Amino acid sequence: ARHGMEALVILSSDPHLSEYLPEHWQVRQWLSGFHGSAGTLVITSDQAALWTDSRYWDQVAHDLNGTSIQPMYQGHPDVPSPTKWLIKQLPEGRAAHMDFRTLSTTAWQHWHDQLTPHGLSVADAGDLFDHVWPDRPALPAQPIYAHRSPYACRHVTDNLAAVRQAMTQASAQWHLLSSLDDIAWLFNLRGSDVPFNPVFLAHALVGQDAASLFVAPGALPESLADELAREGITVRSYDDIDAALRGIPADQSILADPDRTTVSLLELCEHLRIVSQPAPSQMLKACKSLEEIEHVRQTMEYDGAALCEFFAWFESALGQEPITELTIDEQITLARSRQPGFVSPSFGTIAGFNANGAMPHYQATPQRHDTIEGDGLLLIDSGGQYLGGTTDITRVVPVGHVSAQQKQDFTLVLRGMIALSQARFPTGTPGGLLDATARMPLWQQGLDFGHGTGHGVGYFLNVHEGPQSISPRLSGSAATGLRAGMITSNEPGLYRPGKWGIRIENLVLAQAAQTTKFGEFLQFETLTLCPIDTRCIDVAMLSNTDRSWLNAYHAEVRTRLATKVSGAAADWLHQRTQPV
Amino acid sequence: ARHGMEALVILSSDPHLSEYLPEHWQVRQWLSGFHGSAGTLVITSDQAALWTDSRYWDQVAHDLNGTSIQPMYQGHPDVPSPTKWLIKQLPEGRAAHMDFRTLSTTAWQHWHDQLTPHGLSVADAGDLFDHVWPDRPALPAQPIYAHRSPYACRHVTDNLAAVRQAMTQASAQWHLLSSLDDIAWLFNLRGSDVPFNPVFLAHALVGQDAASLFVAPGALPESLADELAREGITVRSYDDIDAALRGIPADQSILADPDRTTVSLLELCEHLRIVSQPAPSQMLKACKSLEEIEHVRQTMEYDGAALCEFFAWFESALGQEPITELTIDEQITLARSRQPGFVSPSFGTIAGFNANGAMPHYQATPQRHDTIEGDGLLLIDSGGQYLGGTTDITRVVPVGHVSAQQKQDFTLVLRGMIALSQARFPTGTPGGLLDATARMPLWQQGLDFGHGTGHGVGYFLNVHEGPQSISPRLSGSAATGLRAGMITSNEPGLYRPGKWGIRIENLVLAQAAQTTKFGEFLQFETLTLCPIDTRCIDVAMLSNTDRSWLNAYHAEVRTRLATKVSGAAADWLHQRTQPV
Repeated sequence: ARHGMEALVILSSDPHLSEYLPEHWQVRQWLSGFHGSAGTLVITSDQAALWTDSRYWDQVAHDLNGTSIQPMYQGHPDVPSPTKWLIKQLPEGRAAHMDFRTLSTTAWQHWHDQLTPHGLSVADAGDLFDHVWPDRPALPAQPIYAHRSPYACRHVTDNLAAVRQAMTQASAQWHLLSSLDDIAWLFNLRGSDVPFNPVFLAHALVGQDAASLFVAPGALPESLADELAREGITVRSYDDIDAALRGIPADQSILADPDRTTVSLLELCEHLRIVSQPAPSQMLKACKSLEEIEHVRQTMEYDGAALCEFFAWFESALGQEPITELTIDEQITLARSRQPGFVSPSFGTIAGFNANGAMPHYQATPQRHDTIEGDGLLLIDSGGQYLGGTTDITRVVPVGHVSAQQKQDFTLVLRGMIALSQARFPTGTPGGLLDATARMPLWQQGLDFGHGTGHGVGYFLNVHEGPQSISPRLSGSAATGLRAGMITSNEPGLYRPGKWGIRIENLVLAQAAQTTKFGEFLQFETLTLCPIDTRCIDVAMLSNTDRSWLNAYHAEVRTRLATKVSGAAADWLHQRTQPV
Repeated sequence: ARHGMEALVILSSDPHLSEYLPEHWQVRQWLSGFHGSAGTLVITSDQAALWTDSRYWDQVAHDLNGTSIQPMYQGHPDVPSPTKWLIKQLPEGRAAHMDFRTLSTTAWQHWHDQLTPHGLSVADAGDLFDHVWPDRPALPAQPIYAHRSPYACRHVTDNLAAVRQAMTQASAQWHLLSSLDDIAWLFNLRGSDVPFNPVFLAHALVGQDAASLFVAPGALPESLADELAREGITVRSYDDIDAALRGIPADQSILADPDRTTVSLLELCEHLRIVSQPAPSQMLKACKSLEEIEHVRQTMEYDGAALCEFFAWFESALGQEPITELTIDEQITLARSRQPGFVSPSFGTIAGFNANGAMPHYQATPQRHDTIEGDGLLLIDSGGQYLGGTTDITRVVPVGHVSAQQKQDFTLVLRGMIALSQARFPTGTPGGLLDATARMPLWQQGLDFGHGTGHGVGYFLNVHEGPQSISPRLSGSAATGLRAGMITSNEPGLYRPGKWGIRIENLVLAQAAQTTKFGEFLQFETLTLCPIDTRCIDVAMLSNTDRSWLNAYHAEVRTRLATKVSGAAADWLHQRTQPV
């Protein structure tokens, strides 16, 4: 009220538009008490409401209990979108205020297009919270380190040259980057400012002859700064980005990705010609080089060996000692941490037993977790950051007796996963067009799952990293054409609320298959190496092709992992890779 | 030059944005001599160029031979788009002139968005051709007739009520329609002003209490005008639409479909609030009623019986009398014309032998056609307009010896067609997401085809009628969610230039399959009833499921058509529906 605002919209967002936010930027969480990763809080003079998607519907009701904030079940047919709700709440002529420092240009355009036909506008709120949030956490400034050869397979000189070539093609003299994966990739640097993604808070400004990297003072060791200087890269203070943008001579041109740059930074470029297009590094880093792929294959062997050790332990300990969903996380991370090049988990392990597995983004907590006992299915989705690649795998394993319906569900999901694994398609096919291939065996039975089939994966970078995806949306990442060298997950699922959840996930690599008069065609190489538990399969439901694929996959897993495991893990590998 | 224009763009378009143009509006064809159905002619002070898509690349080179117009192979990687070409040709500040009476709002937006960043604008050319085109054909004004019960299954009162309800939901007091299929459907009227589509030139203006239909004076019989008057519909002269729009009181609101309304008509609405959204009749008429579906099933039996007679004649005549591609067209139309309710072909028959079949839109002409003799494959794509529905079917039949590679190609296309026929999917799935289902057997072999898998089909209306389609584009009709009652073609193909072409096409109806906790699911009912020539199949390449589908389909075709054919046609039906 003191600032004359009638509506304040708070997204789950920061100046880098990252998936994982530093605590400093978890404003929505601090204000509402809702701990999910995504949500939109809207506050008017007399109301407050919080929108979350279906994966958080249970949690939001629980977290907001006792507050005056109304939970809004986004996507439910009876629930209006935040913009529609605001249109009803606000008289014409008023504004929805948002913090432009954490709002992407694309998101601004969306809100603007929705609100202006109804006489409402979008205005900058600035940051209201420094004054009202006691003990607001400071921004992180963890040490930045180099991602070095042999794991880093591209030279900074070449990365810069490739980006500059794209700038020239786009007639852009400058290029502003705020997205942390793009910056980490461009300079072969890594950090640990946010959980799971090995990135650091930074902006970057690339010119045709020089480049500047804006990071927290002291975060970058001097020796590294010297190395960068030899590439013509100046290291400046994180906050200097504003002055640097203002200092570019008028009428010069700057390339900025509207999905990856905030409104407030682009407002500093008003004296410039803005070339609005995807950051060139998006496609450059998505198409892994042959050397990177070789490291990923090696990393998958390490990751697979860790999983053999974990599962061997799990099967021997089950019934012998208490195992909870939290124990799973501890043990799987422990197994990975013994492997060469391991850095950290690539996301929070999801270990969900029975009904918990039916929540695709379930996270066991010390307050709320189940013990693995009795009969049912245990879903484990986990991954690791290694110097030579990023892994992400989901397996479902039986505990006690597995019912016929559970086997049927598992087999349908498996058939979809195998169908996509075997797809061949023209280079440039949008990933969205392949989504139904993984879904069709489920659809045939009147079943479906509520998430996309696959997301892009970085190289020792973000585990969710575009620009490509395999999802049924027709826009955004699903519209990106698939290219050789892209790594994507292949993870159909099936969730029976209150009962059990199934998801089977491998990472796959798009590779040249053949070139004919009809064009270039790609196929997938399955990168992930870990047995798929055949005790959950109804073998009669598999086609001959499905069986051949599965047996060949298990033979490959056995061969590739055999030299990496011993003892109980080797026995387990041998037992779980028998043909069906 | 006299009008001060430096660039004139001529689309293949008329004031109704129809697929088939009256001769009066075939300006591009008259000016260039190029006879294809689609093309964009751009004329500057010293150059002229004509863009056509790949189906016309051969023809455009031939038709433009000896002219000063440069053929532009649209879609070829080295060929700029018309807008990019214009940007190079015109200095900043100049305009591309187009006839706004034949330009959709969506198309205007596209040209505007492409040109304005480069300092160019889009301006109205008006119609320059009345003065320079000697003997320009007049607009057609064929008699308009009623589509009556039992074939017309909906009452005009109900159609108007449904459209008005949608107008109310969109807060629109008026609704302007220029698209001929929407107008014909709304008023249960039909005509013959353009080839193949049973429509008539008209505009319509629907208010909440009254409606006006603007048609050529004299085209509508008085008795029909009286019937319409009882529904509150006033019949006015075709040209009165301008005055009618101008006469709407200021600040009232009007719904207009940006894909189906021209810029010049919307310019007459500048004093109104324009609600820009799809015409409500698009979705209403796309979802066929149960009664309409029953008529379509009946019509498919008539159409199938005609095809049995045709194919029986063809097989007996082959080698006995000279048969050309033109004879095919004559005989197939003759066979259809003997069936109840037949009105006209639904498009120009495509009969292409061997290499001609490899051109998806080949049309034999008296000047250029082949004789059916020797060995090879004959592709026949044809359809009929009947009072009880619109048909469209493609079959490929063997002539003499069929090679192993031809059988392999045919079988791959058939497998794609069968896979899509058997698909089940959630209600509302965009058709584009199903396209790969029909393509995957081809993709697996490095093969593909250059057109969409399926187009929507009207009910005794346009044979290409949206708003839905099954195509790999991610926007437009392919983004429309499929609903129960929609009829779509299922027509994968394979074209080996200079050799042969294969396309197998049935019409399919989306129908409720089951409702589960995961939602409503649809499946396809195959409507088209005509044997698929098993002599072209490599049976070993079919899965058990494929074979079961094919044998069940042929059993159904035999049963449903048996009572409709006799003599040689009955023998042919029996022989060609034997199981494999």
